[in-house]
Amino acid sequence: VLSAAHVRWGIAGPGEIAERFVAAMGAAPAGRVVAVASRSRERARAFAERHAIGRAHGSYAELAGDDQVEVVYVAVPHSHHEAVTLLCLAAGKHVLCEKPLALNARQAERMASAARQHRRFLMEAIWSRFLPAYRTLGELLAAGQIGRPLLVEAEFGFRMPVMPAHRLFDPELGGGAALDLGIYPLQLASLVLGPPDRVVAVGAVGDTGVDELVAALTAHPGGGVGVAKAALRANLAGVGRVVGESGTIELAAPMHDPRSVTLTSESRSDVVPCAYDGDGLRFEIDEVHRCLAAGELESPVLSLDESLALARALDAIRADLGVVYPGDSA
Amino acid sequence: VLSAAHVRWGIAGPGEIAERFVAAMGAAPAGRVVAVASRSRERARAFAERHAIGRAHGSYAELAGDDQVEVVYVAVPHSHHEAVTLLCLAAGKHVLCEKPLALNARQAERMASAARQHRRFLMEAIWSRFLPAYRTLGELLAAGQIGRPLLVEAEFGFRMPVMPAHRLFDPELGGGAALDLGIYPLQLASLVLGPPDRVVAVGAVGDTGVDELVAALTAHPGGGVGVAKAALRANLAGVGRVVGESGTIELAAPMHDPRSVTLTSESRSDVVPCAYDGDGLRFEIDEVHRCLAAGELESPVLSLDESLALARALDAIRADLGVVYPGDSA
Repeated sequence: VLSAAHVRWGIAGPGEIAERFVAAMGAAPAGRVVAVASRSRERARAFAERHAIGRAHGSYAELAGDDQVEVVYVAVPHSHHEAVTLLCLAAGKHVLCEKPLALNARQAERMASAARQHRRFLMEAIWSRFLPAYRTLGELLAAGQIGRPLLVEAEFGFRMPVMPAHRLFDPELGGGAALDLGIYPLQLASLVLGPPDRVVAVGAVGDTGVDELVAALTAHPGGGVGVAKAALRANLAGVGRVVGESGTIELAAPMHDPRSVTLTSESRSDVVPCAYDGDGLRFEIDEVHRCLAAGELESPVLSLDESLALARALDAIRADLGVVYPGDSA
Repeated sequence: VLSAAHVRWGIAGPGEIAERFVAAMGAAPAGRVVAVASRSRERARAFAERHAIGRAHGSYAELAGDDQVEVVYVAVPHSHHEAVTLLCLAAGKHVLCEKPLALNARQAERMASAARQHRRFLMEAIWSRFLPAYRTLGELLAAGQIGRPLLVEAEFGFRMPVMPAHRLFDPELGGGAALDLGIYPLQLASLVLGPPDRVVAVGAVGDTGVDELVAALTAHPGGGVGVAKAALRANLAGVGRVVGESGTIELAAPMHDPRSVTLTSESRSDVVPCAYDGDGLRFEIDEVHRCLAAGELESPVLSLDESLALARALDAIRADLGVVYPGDSA
């Protein structure tokens, strides 16, 4: 039974991450997925049946027009984030949009403007930020456990065979390591040191025209430094590290989903377990529910201005590497 | 008794590293320290007495003119590497010069030119390269254990109080993290991926005008990427890592003096112990002896061209950070 207290979600894009989202919603009692949409009605129906979702739409416009839906989880490829998000916002829906918010900063700015204009909630789905480990990180920093943070380094990389048809290698879909994986280390540096004011990158671009290996440096207000690495070509250890004047906090690998945090200061190390049950997406879902209940149109944990700064950082990285998407010209 | 077979060394600059050098020479039977020089005859004499060295000179010119000396170990502050090295080369001495080779690339180029012109041996004292661990690294790479190397990351940093009078904080002496510590991670990337063809850096410059924290990216021929970090303001873990297409080789911290190497490929990790006795400087001393005996004027392990590339990399880092030394204008 769907009570009035339930937040009613629609899902745009019944892919792999949407499967995780539905599983995570099971642990978030305040919400319920009531609809799903795909460009293929068949795919939408199959997904709806698999998850006992009442309504299956054959287009995103149908989903945007569904008056049972309050908030849409946009889980289509990066290249379509903007179009689907604008459609939903214009129809009065709130939106949680998968990371990266858009293909480039210009698209992201249009999305943020639309959310503000229509007075609807919009957040980039950087789920890691809402995990227990990230809360612990914030508490340790706030308590001054490592003094002033100076350096944030993190990485996310794995080796996969080059598959030109796979979205990660396809410029049409906004492929490449930076947008899909690099956003995680970048957001960690931004979280700890503030949004970057300069970004430089080097890397390797593969035959399909996307970045398969990238390292970026970010300069932050006050002199903080970020080091972000991402790769589709090599396995990276995946640790996240905040080095402060008097100690280091380490997010266990993988830093986008750490299950423990280690604080090292002077000669002593303490491990803080940050385990949790179920799918980690549930913490960002809780935050959306909290914001909607409180009438907040942006999360204080991840503002639209910060998402725009991250989008500009990704633009700068691609500019340094010479990666251009067909969608950039739109 | 000094036999004709002994290589006769003079030391310019009786400081801390010279103490280590003398200790290391004890384990290198082919060589003998026969003279030491300082701008202060008193300091030279005290050093000579402490180490039973026969000759103490009150100027570097005296040392250069000492016909008992074949090769000079230049261990004066960075700012004086060029002047002392040129003096020694012009007087017909071979030179092992502490790292970094000079304050900037222009000085380093003049030094390399002088060595070539006078047909004397010259090498930058990047002692790490000659350690057992680095030899193991080279063997593992040559054997294809991690496939093509893609990414080299390394760091060297410690926290020390800001002491304006200390050489590390003094622009007059070429202070800062990059020249003193950053050279180690930079040379590792250069060793594995070839000298860099592009360098970018961000960091923090302190009140005395030197870089106290620096992160640099290096782009190498063929698409390899280097990440180098150095700090006077924070303790860095100090691991060195070479990430290849099919595995990773890790140099144990501190990466400038690792005592083991770990090879990780697929799901398996093997630790190769690379311990040694005595002071690690002895391996570079052995290399100088080998080169002199073979009539080689440069070491194949660290050519002057590579040292020039490293000097240019340090210049680029300082340019990005805005660190200028008074000695740069000379």
